Amino acid sequence: MAKKKFPLFNRIALIGVGLIGSSLARAIKKHELSRELAVATRRRSTLAVARKLKLGDSYHLKAAQAVKAADLVILCAPLGANAELAKQIGPNLKTGAIVSDVGSSKVSVIKDVTPHLPEGVILIPAHPIAGTENSGPEAGFDTLFEKRWCVLTPSEEAALPAVNKIKRFWQALGSRVEIMDPKQHDQVLAITSHLPHLIAYTLVDTATELERDLKKDVIRFSAGGFRDFTRIAASDPTMWRDVFLSNREAVLDILGRFTEDLTALQRAIRRGDGNLLHNRFTRTRKIRREVIDAKQAGTEPWRRGK
Amino acid sequence: MAKKKFPLFNRIALIGVGLIGSSLARAIKKHELSRELAVATRRRSTLAVARKLKLGDSYHLKAAQAVKAADLVILCAPLGANAELAKQIGPNLKTGAIVSDVGSSKVSVIKDVTPHLPEGVILIPAHPIAGTENSGPEAGFDTLFEKRWCVLTPSEEAALPAVNKIKRFWQALGSRVEIMDPKQHDQVLAITSHLPHLIAYTLVDTATELERDLKKDVIRFSAGGFRDFTRIAASDPTMWRDVFLSNREAVLDILGRFTEDLTALQRAIRRGDGNLLHNRFTRTRKIRREVIDAKQAGTEPWRRGK
Repeated sequence: MAKKKFPLFNRIALIGVGLIGSSLARAIKKHELSRELAVATRRRSTLAVARKLKLGDSYHLKAAQAVKAADLVILCAPLGANAELAKQIGPNLKTGAIVSDVGSSKVSVIKDVTPHLPEGVILIPAHPIAGTENSGPEAGFDTLFEKRWCVLTPSEEAALPAVNKIKRFWQALGSRVEIMDPKQHDQVLAITSHLPHLIAYTLVDTATELERDLKKDVIRFSAGGFRDFTRIAASDPTMWRDVFLSNREAVLDILGRFTEDLTALQRAIRRGDGNLLHNRFTRTRKIRREVIDAKQAGTEPWRRGK
Repeated sequence: MAKKKFPLFNRIALIGVGLIGSSLARAIKKHELSRELAVATRRRSTLAVARKLKLGDSYHLKAAQAVKAADLVILCAPLGANAELAKQIGPNLKTGAIVSDVGSSKVSVIKDVTPHLPEGVILIPAHPIAGTENSGPEAGFDTLFEKRWCVLTPSEEAALPAVNKIKRFWQALGSRVEIMDPKQHDQVLAITSHLPHLIAYTLVDTATELERDLKKDVIRFSAGGFRDFTRIAASDPTMWRDVFLSNREAVLDILGRFTEDLTALQRAIRRGDGNLLHNRFTRTRKIRREVIDAKQAGTEPWRRGK
């Protein structure tokens, strides 16, 4: 009851109701984190689905309408839409409001959004490291963020009370919150998420071009590793297009290193250099051990099984 | 009881007791597929573990001893050991014996083993598409082959009764058996398994070379995709060295295609070509759908969860 009387926010506006936005809507309601929840999406058909799913208290085709009087605005559209959205909502943001987001790259969000924010509005970029290969408002669920990391990348000038409020918000959704430098975040995610997605998309795309009978067998015998890649390569195309364009620099950097290392292994295979292969394959086992240890250190797994 | 009185084989000899060999030993015993089970491994310490685990009825350091009087010999050592093993066991193989294996590449097995087999001994190469990232005799378990594919690649001259016997053997272990051309097998596996492993090894290796603080964060935030790769990259180094050297041609061919496709995406990212990225990411979704359909067509999943 006390929770109900003093929610963290008076009015939250969610701009975008895809997998992440609709999961946020459900989780905010479940944990009663706002008196009022406004949801916005520019597509009429998507808004109708949001309404049918009862995701919010009010429904808007115009983001600028949804953010009026909101004390928290969360941008949940693909990264490429941020600049335009910020421009639209800027004039309607109330003093003291916090603007946040859920994007997979953070330097670009700061660059795209900051110029459009009026004085007295605080940007606290956020990235919940959570998701599935499904997309759209119907794919969301209210436990998506439980036991997952949420990385915040506030500027050094950001007011501490606002940072703490967003931190409490994500903790209330069950997340483990970490504060990081935006550039460091982008480099880390380029390796842990963006490059793996790019590789998976590429490998599956390579398979689509195979001769018909070979492709049929590849699909039948996909259990040897390929199947995991197809799951990753089924992720939302628009979201991922924007991730690669937004985090271009860090992705190209790590991709360059990856390609060099792959070329070295290719050369070893061609020359029959078994020692080099064995050495590389041995040292990668250590990393697996560290990943397992890191997971054990944190009492519970923060990743949903497939 | 009838099963006990008329097992499929009188004496099976397993050469090698790693993950696959020891799983086979357990499954053969469980399903009573042989009157006698001889296990061989050239390392004294491994043989002691096999004995402790009661994997067989007799234990041998010399493969040539183990195969005496066997009507089925299964080579379960890394692919690189096959030629030498075949040479050692050849003179001791009894007429009518079947020699088989469990290797991930098939053309090389035929090339390595055939020259050493005496007249009247039949080679039926086999590849159970099953495994985990763990290795050694203690990692085995008797249900490893259930609901998994086992591909047989007999030559066109191979006696049909022998082919059928091996087929019944794997079916008794719970596998779905498929007969394929060895070259086709090697091409398919290069895509579904060998290249995914090579890529995973490379990506994890790229991460090992990162600066220390970046690497620490990569391990902490590994849930975004990287963690799946570390699991694959923890697989047995010796086995995988031999896979790449044995299936060199098919791996290099598919790796070449993959690299071309990756370069095209890299170029699109550098130039900001969002349309190309979106198109590629959209068509890969179709393959995922086909993989899911193929799985559903087959009543039950044939892959163990993580």
